[in-house]
Amino acid sequence: MAIKNFQEEFTVSSSKRTQLIDITGKVERLVKASKIKSGLCIVFVPHATAAVIMNENESGLVKDMEDYIKKNFPVGAGYAHDKIDDNADAHVASAFIGQSRMLPIKDGTIVRGTWQNIFVVELYGPRNSRRVVVSVVGK
Amino acid sequence: MAIKNFQEEFTVSSSKRTQLIDITGKVERLVKASKIKSGLCIVFVPHATAAVIMNENESGLVKDMEDYIKKNFPVGAGYAHDKIDDNADAHVASAFIGQSRMLPIKDGTIVRGTWQNIFVVELYGPRNSRRVVVSVVGK
Amino acid sequence: MAIKNFQEEFTVSSSKRTQLIDITGKVERLVKASKIKSGLCIVFVPHATAAVIMNENESGLVKDMEDYIKKNFPVGAGYAHDKIDDNADAHVASAFIGQSRMLPIKDGTIVRGTWQNIFVVELYGPRNSRRVVVSVVGK
Repeated sequence: MAIKNFQEEFTVSSSKRTQLIDITGKVERLVKASKIKSGLCIVFVPHATAAVIMNENESGLVKDMEDYIKKNFPVGAGYAHDKIDDNADAHVASAFIGQSRMLPIKDGTIVRGTWQNIFVVELYGPRNSRRVVVSVVGK
Repeated sequence: MAIKNFQEEFTVSSSKRTQLIDITGKVERLVKASKIKSGLCIVFVPHATAAVIMNENESGLVKDMEDYIKKNFPVGAGYAHDKIDDNADAHVASAFIGQSRMLPIKDGTIVRGTWQNIFVVELYGPRNSRRVVVSVVGK
Repeated sequence: MAIKNFQEEFTVSSSKRTQLIDITGKVERLVKASKIKSGLCIVFVPHATAAVIMNENESGLVKDMEDYIKKNFPVGAGYAHDKIDDNADAHVASAFIGQSRMLPIKDGTIVRGTWQNIFVVELYGPRNSRRVVVSVVGK
């Protein structure tokens, strides 16, 4: 069987400096549209002040995850990069959280746990067009 | 040559709340069983309170990695999610450590360093059936 | 169309214990050499005291990212592994930062943002031959 590679992208908007944005439904629709039945999927943001993570979309937990970022990557904490810009915290967070997550594809859908939603992590918002690239490789 | 995709899963048990479980041998046996000679392999847990990491399986270091998690994602540290549950620490740790790791496959086996063992990270144990999904794409 | 898998590796040298080394140009040349037009690419270090991250190559920010590592994974902070070795900090950092990053390939090149350079993270240098494996799967 021939290899298939499906790539599509969409954008999301943010309204806060640090914000989790649930993109699970959008990713699942693209995987369905790809008609790829089994393989791998990458969810990737081509940005240096954003990231991707997966976890439960419960409002308290979303706040906890945003708080974790603010505590561990504090704004304006004497960064060298802030001498020429004002977003070193966002860059450092993006580098260490990571700008992609990978998922297996089986029976034409993402393999994921019940509480494993996919979030874009905005680290330097508000922005109105953060790109999200979904690339599926399989058959 | 046609694309091959091999997917299989197994379960592991944990006996502590925070625990590293070495799954290197199991993953290597599945990659061998896949008969895929070159490509990529994802090791993925479909859970929101578990993670996957790679490093040396030395008992002191395993303790150090478990201690790192306990210190950086402390239990009961005033999380909003703990108002409705008791495991916010485990969710936050899972989100930021990540629920998968990727490895290249070459000559029918995983490319990895001598000290690069693969661990499931239990973050909310004990549990007796944590799922691990191994998906290999290649030829 | 048949699946293609291209794998190649190169080495990098480090001159400090903790050091970011930009490998973007080398990775892009290998992806071009692969002649794979669309798919996925993994950049992987087969080491337990190194990692891979992506972000902007601005000298102040590179210092900020190195400082983040030194602060969050301090040398000699009472680790159990240090009873038999002297690099537990490097192992723990490698495990949690992660030893690979994934990127989509489109039109024969890596999809990445303007400020999204690829770095090997040396955590236990100086070393003169850190291996970097680039594996591309696609068509």
